[in-house]
Amino acid sequence: MKVMHYEQIEATPVQMEGAVGCRIRCLIDPDDGAPSFSMRQFQIDPGGHTPKHTHGFEHEVFVLAGSGVVLGRDVEHPLRPGTVAFVPPNQLHQFRNTGTGPLKFLCLIPHPLRGMTDSCTVACGCD
Amino acid sequence: MKVMHYEQIEATPVQMEGAVGCRIRCLIDPDDGAPSFSMRQFQIDPGGHTPKHTHGFEHEVFVLAGSGVVLGRDVEHPLRPGTVAFVPPNQLHQFRNTGTGPLKFLCLIPHPLRGMTDSCTVACGCD
Repeated sequence: MKVMHYEQIEATPVQMEGAVGCRIRCLIDPDDGAPSFSMRQFQIDPGGHTPKHTHGFEHEVFVLAGSGVVLGRDVEHPLRPGTVAFVPPNQLHQFRNTGTGPLKFLCLIPHPLRGMTDSCTVACGCD
Repeated sequence: MKVMHYEQIEATPVQMEGAVGCRIRCLIDPDDGAPSFSMRQFQIDPGGHTPKHTHGFEHEVFVLAGSGVVLGRDVEHPLRPGTVAFVPPNQLHQFRNTGTGPLKFLCLIPHPLRGMTDSCTVACGCD
């Protein structure tokens, strides 16, 4: 059993093209023995955003702090602490901080399974 | 894309034997089209606890509010907002509220895959 406070885990800049002002912490991943999916925590600076992209795996998101929007197709959904977002596979999406403080959220992804060729962990800057 | 505040989703009592003062919200599950894993939110009343049990699938947990402990084998690990806990498959565990307010946490589980015979969703009182 791994039990830690998330702030004990190092935050590293997200290096993906299209990411601005984003850092990531890998809270639970295959190195911990997680067999199915990984828990990551993102922090986006005011004015920052994740890449606007699609991929063959889903995101399960829970907002911890701050305010912003998630773009889905042509609609922007507001985000605040306690907001839950499910981004299905192959849907365009982007998370943007529209507030004055950091936007913090959990974003969980599956491990490569069932013929998916993406390496989800690498794709999301968490390797 | 599903975007909701978690408090908009109904909380129902956890009916499992050994659960005391526990409610669950199914935030993201197969009914939303989630292909790999489900996000649930638990709330445990002061003095309450989840069952002390094991099962063949993992938990990925993030504490949102309150204080308590997670029992792992013979060790109790403290929980506070921001604590991350990974419970590997087949490890004995129990979450207890030792504080004076509600203990709230996210607990994610995989969908049945790769020959697992448990129905995780039903097993955790989220059907």
